[in-house]
Amino acid sequence: MTDQPTKILLSEDQIPTHWYNIAADLPSPVPPHLHPGTKEPVKPEDLAPIFPPGLVEQELSTERWIEIPEQVRAIYRLWRPAPLYRAYRLEAALGTRARVYYKYEGASPIGSHKANSSVPQAFYNQQAGITRLTTETGAGQWGAALAFACSVFGLDCDVWQVRNSYQTKPYRRMQMETYGARVTPSPSERTEAGRAIRERFPDTSGSLGMAISEAVEAAVGDPQANYSLGSVLNHVALHQTVIGQEALLQLAAVGERLPDQVFACAGGGSNLAGLSFPFLRENLANDAAVRVVACEPAACPSLTKGEYRYDFGDTANLTPLLKMYTLGADFVPDPVHAGGLRFHGMAPLVSAAYDQHLLDAVAIKQREAFAAGVLFSRCEGIIPASESNHAIAGAIAHLQAADDDAADQVVLIGVSGSGQLDLPAYADYLSDEMLDA
Amino acid sequence: MTDQPTKILLSEDQIPTHWYNIAADLPSPVPPHLHPGTKEPVKPEDLAPIFPPGLVEQELSTERWIEIPEQVRAIYRLWRPAPLYRAYRLEAALGTRARVYYKYEGASPIGSHKANSSVPQAFYNQQAGITRLTTETGAGQWGAALAFACSVFGLDCDVWQVRNSYQTKPYRRMQMETYGARVTPSPSERTEAGRAIRERFPDTSGSLGMAISEAVEAAVGDPQANYSLGSVLNHVALHQTVIGQEALLQLAAVGERLPDQVFACAGGGSNLAGLSFPFLRENLANDAAVRVVACEPAACPSLTKGEYRYDFGDTANLTPLLKMYTLGADFVPDPVHAGGLRFHGMAPLVSAAYDQHLLDAVAIKQREAFAAGVLFSRCEGIIPASESNHAIAGAIAHLQAADDDAADQVVLIGVSGSGQLDLPAYADYLSDEMLDA
Repeated sequence: MTDQPTKILLSEDQIPTHWYNIAADLPSPVPPHLHPGTKEPVKPEDLAPIFPPGLVEQELSTERWIEIPEQVRAIYRLWRPAPLYRAYRLEAALGTRARVYYKYEGASPIGSHKANSSVPQAFYNQQAGITRLTTETGAGQWGAALAFACSVFGLDCDVWQVRNSYQTKPYRRMQMETYGARVTPSPSERTEAGRAIRERFPDTSGSLGMAISEAVEAAVGDPQANYSLGSVLNHVALHQTVIGQEALLQLAAVGERLPDQVFACAGGGSNLAGLSFPFLRENLANDAAVRVVACEPAACPSLTKGEYRYDFGDTANLTPLLKMYTLGADFVPDPVHAGGLRFHGMAPLVSAAYDQHLLDAVAIKQREAFAAGVLFSRCEGIIPASESNHAIAGAIAHLQAADDDAADQVVLIGVSGSGQLDLPAYADYLSDEMLDA
Repeated sequence: MTDQPTKILLSEDQIPTHWYNIAADLPSPVPPHLHPGTKEPVKPEDLAPIFPPGLVEQELSTERWIEIPEQVRAIYRLWRPAPLYRAYRLEAALGTRARVYYKYEGASPIGSHKANSSVPQAFYNQQAGITRLTTETGAGQWGAALAFACSVFGLDCDVWQVRNSYQTKPYRRMQMETYGARVTPSPSERTEAGRAIRERFPDTSGSLGMAISEAVEAAVGDPQANYSLGSVLNHVALHQTVIGQEALLQLAAVGERLPDQVFACAGGGSNLAGLSFPFLRENLANDAAVRVVACEPAACPSLTKGEYRYDFGDTANLTPLLKMYTLGADFVPDPVHAGGLRFHGMAPLVSAAYDQHLLDAVAIKQREAFAAGVLFSRCEGIIPASESNHAIAGAIAHLQAADDDAADQVVLIGVSGSGQLDLPAYADYLSDEMLDA
């Protein structure tokens, strides 16, 4: 199989027509989200103040296939189907006989997989007559994705960005503003929550929890506004399943068998879910034996070190209670560069799959992750996102440990984004000053 | 023609097999480069101290088609054929009946068209037994392209970066270092030229001319090293013609006719040459009537305001004398953001074509360029490079001026790169503080 193309491309009419919902196929049902007050399963009307009907329905759905609206597929065409690459040069550098593929989500306009969910989220809100979306963002990947989607659907986009990132990582803010978003450093004077925090902690550099509080308050207080979240929730995981569905088609298009191993980075879980759930369906429905490996940061190891219990998604305890692997809602990870993986919990759908022994997890320190990212860059040209480096490192560790009998494997890596805006993290690694967390 | 895909893709076996040399088709011959000492046409041996035989041959060639080595095409496969997009959403925003396409070179690993030439340059040097390439870079696009290519072919890459950019635009430096390049702020203590400049001007923030002097000196003084240039010269223009050749195939693939208008930004000229020369061949060889428009910055208008005469490519007067449209080798443009367009001259092949009335030129102020870039970003998602915005602005001005009879046109825009690392320029524009130069 060395006459395959480097890039395996599909035509636009092969963009998936449905999102895949693993809740329909899991051996045991997924525990419901609970209302934080009543501790009862949340009902659609509990979610209605901040989410449009289309997304509420998806959040609570156990339907296997959910149709992707044509208006969403029209925007997906700007970058989807995303390329699947055969990593010929990485294989050679590793001296492996395995066939290594990577699915690259950095080709989206904003440079990561986040646009797969921001586009439908903006669409369903626009359909519901909403004119403004609020959200929070840390390093800014989700904020940029939502800003792009709002510009496409003509919505105002109001982003609260953790003050520390706002000040020290200005590129993502500039990206959001280029798409027309308003970006406010959090905590801000614009909300009660923000003002209260600033009074108590005048010098705080902010946190994701604080920014969530502000964005939710702003949405609740404005009937024209809704709130939008970029990971963790079921509907976000659903939207990302276009990734794995395309990868399945692409491997088949070059006559490749199902992968033996799939490696994806895991923070909130949406990227892992998106790549791996369509492969887990092959295991569940068609008796395939694809091993899925969640690659999480050692600094924030929710699957490998967390507890499976109900917990809040945010530090302010505003969200529904979610059954998930969690390090505790007030867990503060070391300041590793992979900002997108620094979340204390894991998406309920991913957590349920892990609890039911459908996937494995490994924790990877960031120096190992960046060593893998630098090798990958020098072989493949693409400089991966900080988060994606964890998946690459997981795959490389596996390939280097595999004995000769296991060498003839097919390995699929999820490269969730481009590292063009993560270059300071690479510089930190190359200067030998990187925290080995 | 509204059922075309958004992205028109080709398979990897459609990557061009030859570079196109317009010198073979121009009605009048291209004036030769002159040796700066003797004023005689340069001979291969004059170029041998800094260029390998393969590139020297191309520089002096009048052969129409020059075969692309298989080893170069193998690396091109990492991103080529580059996508051609139908700009449906931009068309709608402009309210035009024209069909607008853009050829996007930002999909290369380094985010610009520069890799089309850095890869063959690294290859021919490696074939000649060279182990180190030296070059200069301003904002860093060319340096990043060469660093990438050197990492692929196992060469050391030694980049002198203008000190001001080195200090104020660190992302490109980090990108070069991630690929393994050594980056030195220029003027430096590493060369005689650098030391002399620093003695005379201890506080200088450097210039491209100074950096060229250092990179050339370093190559001349080391038999294992050669020098590499990212624009202007004939062999660089040749390498870029993969762009236009692919665009021709892509338009044909969807049943589109030849474009009425092709807009490309023009600095040193390699991007313009690469997109437009294959279309000019259709005019010269097949009586087509494609209008090609070079979009240059008003701050550095070599075609629209320069003189067609022999001049040096650098301020230090080290290069051969090149017959070109020039503002004078000591012209210092206003500090506009499109660093890649701030060159005092225009590639000799482009200059000859312009002198022979084969293409038009317009000069565009940077505020108009960025207004176009912001509109494009909000419609198409892709944030274009600062340089590319000039081509987009040229096309938009044309479309808005076209009367109704001319409205049913086919317009092709060259988007030479991604603006992910140009976001501070967008921020400057959005803050209304941008110099209107």
